Amino acid sequence: MTQSTQISRDTALSTVSRYLEAIAEATSPSQIAALYTDDATVEDPVGSEPVRGKDAIAAFFAPLTQSQRDTELLNFRHCGDSAAFHFRVRTHTPDGVVEIEPLDVMTFTTDGLISSAKAYWSPEDVRMD
Amino acid sequence: MTQSTQISRDTALSTVSRYLEAIAEATSPSQIAALYTDDATVEDPVGSEPVRGKDAIAAFFAPLTQSQRDTELLNFRHCGDSAAFHFRVRTHTPDGVVEIEPLDVMTFTTDGLISSAKAYWSPEDVRMD
Repeated sequence: MTQSTQISRDTALSTVSRYLEAIAEATSPSQIAALYTDDATVEDPVGSEPVRGKDAIAAFFAPLTQSQRDTELLNFRHCGDSAAFHFRVRTHTPDGVVEIEPLDVMTFTTDGLISSAKAYWSPEDVRMD
Repeated sequence: MTQSTQISRDTALSTVSRYLEAIAEATSPSQIAALYTDDATVEDPVGSEPVRGKDAIAAFFAPLTQSQRDTELLNFRHCGDSAAFHFRVRTHTPDGVVEIEPLDVMTFTTDGLISSAKAYWSPEDVRMD
């Protein structure tokens, strides 16, 4: 018995892949924000005040454009209008590589825009290489 | 800026570990249900109608007591009052071992009871060994 919108696994995976690419390339914050609906929420990490709306989301991701990073999708699960996934972000800084592997949960519209995102990680999960 | 209850990583991890043990041992459905608050919700998989309340949760898990299984925690992230984790469930059936590796998200009360659980997996993630 379903209670919510269904989207295909391919649609969800495509958006998640573009999200990881956008984080890695980080050519502009608006490129990342374009993946979200106008009134989307981002709670990153979970427990922090959610960021609401495309402009706020662009501002939230703006610091990403200041350093080089790579991303890798480690695991992906899809069901209903949602996906949960595990990924690695390696940020290259003058002091070394900062590595973090969050577990994220997202909901999507039928056209594959992100309507909500929650990122589960804490400072104790951050590693320096 | 926090918006919700904070629980310790140890409290969240302890409950998640007891959840995986209870699934593996499955001595009784009420043993599993005892990990939840009276009005907890379980949405498993996400997109299905949530099961509400301890009795309904016990009934939901009742089929588990009918076969042998083992569980393994693969990854765990904690933040705020929540945890996200990746785990493996191997169910031993007359036809072979059925393996599934869901990504779950849970919220907890300060005393470590589960107040909500969402399980992200789909039939295409199920493997037969």
